[in-house]
Amino acid sequence: MNSFGRIFRMTIFGESHGVSVGLILDGCPAGLSLKAEDFEKDIERRKGGIQKGTTPRQESDLPIFKSGLFNDRTTGAPITILFENNNTRSGDYEKLRAVPRPGHADFVAHEKFGGFEDYRGGGHFSGRLTVALVAAGVIAKKLLQRIQTDIHAEIKEIAGLTDLEAGLQKAIDAKDSVGGIVECRVQNVPASLGEPFFDSVESLISHAVFSIPAVRGIEFGTGFAAARMFGSEHNDAIADKTGRTITNHAGGVVGGISNGNELIFRVAIKPTSSTPKEQETFNRETDTMEKFSVKGRHDLCIALRVPVILEAVTALVLADLMMLEQKIQRVLKS
Amino acid sequence: MNSFGRIFRMTIFGESHGVSVGLILDGCPAGLSLKAEDFEKDIERRKGGIQKGTTPRQESDLPIFKSGLFNDRTTGAPITILFENNNTRSGDYEKLRAVPRPGHADFVAHEKFGGFEDYRGGGHFSGRLTVALVAAGVIAKKLLQRIQTDIHAEIKEIAGLTDLEAGLQKAIDAKDSVGGIVECRVQNVPASLGEPFFDSVESLISHAVFSIPAVRGIEFGTGFAAARMFGSEHNDAIADKTGRTITNHAGGVVGGISNGNELIFRVAIKPTSSTPKEQETFNRETDTMEKFSVKGRHDLCIALRVPVILEAVTALVLADLMMLEQKIQRVLKS
Amino acid sequence: MNSFGRIFRMTIFGESHGVSVGLILDGCPAGLSLKAEDFEKDIERRKGGIQKGTTPRQESDLPIFKSGLFNDRTTGAPITILFENNNTRSGDYEKLRAVPRPGHADFVAHEKFGGFEDYRGGGHFSGRLTVALVAAGVIAKKLLQRIQTDIHAEIKEIAGLTDLEAGLQKAIDAKDSVGGIVECRVQNVPASLGEPFFDSVESLISHAVFSIPAVRGIEFGTGFAAARMFGSEHNDAIADKTGRTITNHAGGVVGGISNGNELIFRVAIKPTSSTPKEQETFNRETDTMEKFSVKGRHDLCIALRVPVILEAVTALVLADLMMLEQKIQRVLKS
Amino acid sequence: MNSFGRIFRMTIFGESHGVSVGLILDGCPAGLSLKAEDFEKDIERRKGGIQKGTTPRQESDLPIFKSGLFNDRTTGAPITILFENNNTRSGDYEKLRAVPRPGHADFVAHEKFGGFEDYRGGGHFSGRLTVALVAAGVIAKKLLQRIQTDIHAEIKEIAGLTDLEAGLQKAIDAKDSVGGIVECRVQNVPASLGEPFFDSVESLISHAVFSIPAVRGIEFGTGFAAARMFGSEHNDAIADKTGRTITNHAGGVVGGISNGNELIFRVAIKPTSSTPKEQETFNRETDTMEKFSVKGRHDLCIALRVPVILEAVTALVLADLMMLEQKIQRVLKS
Repeated sequence: MNSFGRIFRMTIFGESHGVSVGLILDGCPAGLSLKAEDFEKDIERRKGGIQKGTTPRQESDLPIFKSGLFNDRTTGAPITILFENNNTRSGDYEKLRAVPRPGHADFVAHEKFGGFEDYRGGGHFSGRLTVALVAAGVIAKKLLQRIQTDIHAEIKEIAGLTDLEAGLQKAIDAKDSVGGIVECRVQNVPASLGEPFFDSVESLISHAVFSIPAVRGIEFGTGFAAARMFGSEHNDAIADKTGRTITNHAGGVVGGISNGNELIFRVAIKPTSSTPKEQETFNRETDTMEKFSVKGRHDLCIALRVPVILEAVTALVLADLMMLEQKIQRVLKS
Repeated sequence: MNSFGRIFRMTIFGESHGVSVGLILDGCPAGLSLKAEDFEKDIERRKGGIQKGTTPRQESDLPIFKSGLFNDRTTGAPITILFENNNTRSGDYEKLRAVPRPGHADFVAHEKFGGFEDYRGGGHFSGRLTVALVAAGVIAKKLLQRIQTDIHAEIKEIAGLTDLEAGLQKAIDAKDSVGGIVECRVQNVPASLGEPFFDSVESLISHAVFSIPAVRGIEFGTGFAAARMFGSEHNDAIADKTGRTITNHAGGVVGGISNGNELIFRVAIKPTSSTPKEQETFNRETDTMEKFSVKGRHDLCIALRVPVILEAVTALVLADLMMLEQKIQRVLKS
Repeated sequence: MNSFGRIFRMTIFGESHGVSVGLILDGCPAGLSLKAEDFEKDIERRKGGIQKGTTPRQESDLPIFKSGLFNDRTTGAPITILFENNNTRSGDYEKLRAVPRPGHADFVAHEKFGGFEDYRGGGHFSGRLTVALVAAGVIAKKLLQRIQTDIHAEIKEIAGLTDLEAGLQKAIDAKDSVGGIVECRVQNVPASLGEPFFDSVESLISHAVFSIPAVRGIEFGTGFAAARMFGSEHNDAIADKTGRTITNHAGGVVGGISNGNELIFRVAIKPTSSTPKEQETFNRETDTMEKFSVKGRHDLCIALRVPVILEAVTALVLADLMMLEQKIQRVLKS
Repeated sequence: MNSFGRIFRMTIFGESHGVSVGLILDGCPAGLSLKAEDFEKDIERRKGGIQKGTTPRQESDLPIFKSGLFNDRTTGAPITILFENNNTRSGDYEKLRAVPRPGHADFVAHEKFGGFEDYRGGGHFSGRLTVALVAAGVIAKKLLQRIQTDIHAEIKEIAGLTDLEAGLQKAIDAKDSVGGIVECRVQNVPASLGEPFFDSVESLISHAVFSIPAVRGIEFGTGFAAARMFGSEHNDAIADKTGRTITNHAGGVVGGISNGNELIFRVAIKPTSSTPKEQETFNRETDTMEKFSVKGRHDLCIALRVPVILEAVTALVLADLMMLEQKIQRVLKS
């Protein structure tokens, strides 16, 4: 349930206020060079920038390698990486237990796990676990770089505005949280990845993408706009024997299979559930609705953190598909 | 690769112009009443209505049971259902082999399967296989009805218009094909389905939904619009101990888990790739681009067929999740 | 539940007295030549020879291809093969329903499937389904032959005797059924197949082998005798850089991984449960134990049928492992 | 590849001389009480007793919980447990790198992972990882105890002798290592576990059992002896409506399904590959065979450690099957 991938397969674990979060990556080819510093840039990007709107929680986030590496290279055995949790103040949460926060998993976690869930800071549902996704993504991206496949995601819109600073200012002015749109583009995706129907590229990417907390929608190529186009407009004319198309409305996937053109998709990120605004919710103990207000550190716009996470899950899917399609070898030549 | 589901699991097979298409459904509880007439309504719905815009291909589509039934009930063994292909005219396609149709899988299939693919009418990539999805969905829906879970999908928009007749007329006037938006709503989804992260309800549904040919996007609840809302607007206030919320912007899923409210999502369907309009594509033999025009029977708006298919894949996901969550028993009391 | 294999994956279906049994093989490389006559020899071998001790049930067993083939080659899409059931006399079984046959699955099937199981002739539990295993094995063996991997299984012992005719005569004289030992040897297994721990070659082969009805034990190399050897005796000295060993007590697998030497294992087959001898069992209706005697056609020694089935499941495992290890390509050059 | 189980699923990781070994257990029901002291007894048993024949390697083996527990109970989130490696002397192994040890995975690991494997002390192939199996088994056994299912394995034979002390003395006298036979019995297995064919109880147990290093064979019930019995002897007469049988030659499984009687199987353990005796093997560097002798701490009879590991993997299989069959709930009442 906490695993994803067919033969390049990750498992994530941990809780927001437990001792650690982390991941196991199984099926990674042997011989890939890997050091702690490889993770620095993406882990820093995940913090969303030192800017207005992001949480002040201090996360040092040094990857601690527990297995699968030897002489700074992958061995072919499962790679285990831990991130310790510091700076957690559980007291913030205990008093709120009777009051499930709107937009958060508090209520469903209690229903599903019968009250045994670690409720502190969202527990296992916390966005904190995305650091494990990012770390796995670093490894996947290193693999993909060997065949020049390059993934880049960026924010296209904050609070409905393409001027991102202005979007954040809207949140600050309203003393509220805001959402955004993130786009991911992948260069040099080989043709032939994916399968018809259930294991289509879109199926696998969307599966992975919806594991990122706060994602509410995904669209490939022209996406929802395609529903308003004529067929003759939307179809991409094939131009040569490599399969290059004149336009790329399909976003690089036809019939569920990559066609060798740029892979493009966009995701919608909801506004951060923890907003400074006062809200209403239900109190289990008093059996009444009551006013509720989030204290403590939180992002005004969680979308700022999403690009690097989106790259990570995309890299996981593509690395797995490339291994299935035998485009990445099980032992790498150094 | 052609299978989906963890313990309630379907596999599809067949080709557009082969002898048959069909499915195996494994893990279905024993004791479910099942007859050929149970399939009639949904198979008829899949034809998209006897109206302008849909293909004239005559598909009788009688389900032929090959295993898993005894005395008109499921036995707990895998259920195999075949649909024979009639009325296929392969000659239409052979001459086009050098010319991959824009928007279709012809090019990628050739790349992926090295020219060994059955290229007639899209082969294994054909929308013809959705009859197998629909058939599996009939069984899944019968299971769900036992706990009053009810799935309903409908077209919300054709060619950008909510007046569906007018949308189709746009296609006819333009001598082109058009797309649409389909919405799916599910009543009486129990809370607690799905898992945090990789097996979230959204992950599994989107995975299944993108196996439907022509889907280009999916959004849950307010979806892409959520990216333009404030957090205090978007959050759904919990109103009572059942988890009922005052609004339902989340579309029934929070933290990846169903929260007991109505499940709502929408999908974007691209315009039919086979349009009557003349297009350009590449000819492998002459090594030049050339004019190309689709002959024969095709839908002007494939979205008309989608609602019942969308219900089917949704039912498959929910039935699987309910069995995992032990809300459906492995042997049904009659 | 009725599927096996990671990326070269088979699913079986059908019942002894239903309309058909069959299989889907997914993940088979495109481009493999395949015709009905390829199946003849192994399907004939499965009948156990026209000799004393085997059932008189007439099974024509022509494979009927339902998907995945085009111009006599595999296409990369799932391959569906059906075998029709003829010559079934269900009346033999209905009257016995209250009386679960000792050694058969009648009792457990009733417990597990709540009485909804197809109880005729063992239903889905029937040895009849091994024809589907054999058919999948034919395809897997054709793949393996491309890299000169050759599988051969043979009976080593019937009723405790290496003179097989004498072993069968023992059954005839005693008017009872007997068991046997079957050995499987595989030449030209490349080194590196399998994984440490859960996906060891022995784990996967034994998993597949115990799906053959009547198997009661399996041992690799020296097997149970190894438990009585000294380490210095049992260890196989490595003789050269190819990994060839002087002896082969390990049977070709060390640390769960194939070492390039001959793969050798043996299985124990119990005596046919349907014996002509009178037995006792419980009658559900009368709630008492009663005398019971099997009528109709049955094998005196089911082991006679096992070699070709054992080859088949071994081939399935090896083909899957070879694809995972990228030793068989996803598209075959013809 | 390093995971096992369908919905109660474990993943193991680590290396003999890396920083740690450990496991993730996913799908464990919420609400199970779990403390470090629950692991003490089985971890101690794994050391094989303070007796002649076992390794002097000091392993403190305290389980370090990294996720999935809260207030000493499981939460439903993945449980991560680490064991640190102490007391490792890697220098012992580096000089031997050119000389693959007979009976060990050194040669195959090098072939499979291209020389990138952690070769120290067997690396990821090491028996050291069985501590992770044992730890997962502790949790699985606690679950099974809730429905009174009780697993007990014991050594039946050392070096061919049922007098176990005498068997060990044989090894000491011969200055060699020896093997043994271990038997596992499970009381109170509910009927209906397992599936026909691929997911038979025997298939799943043998799959798990062959992940234990040094296992060379497995047999259920009368096992290999069944091949020499008559059918009328071997069949177990059903005695009452619970399915209790007069004899239990089947060892509790018929048609792949548990029948409610005691589950019984035996495994053959080869003599420890690291024997004090001088042996021959191939030297990669000199390209010649040479004399070779194992120094350092090793077990004379690895079978002494196997019972608790065998119990562990059996518990994992049964817990998974019970969850599939809905005999264990996803949230436990305390």
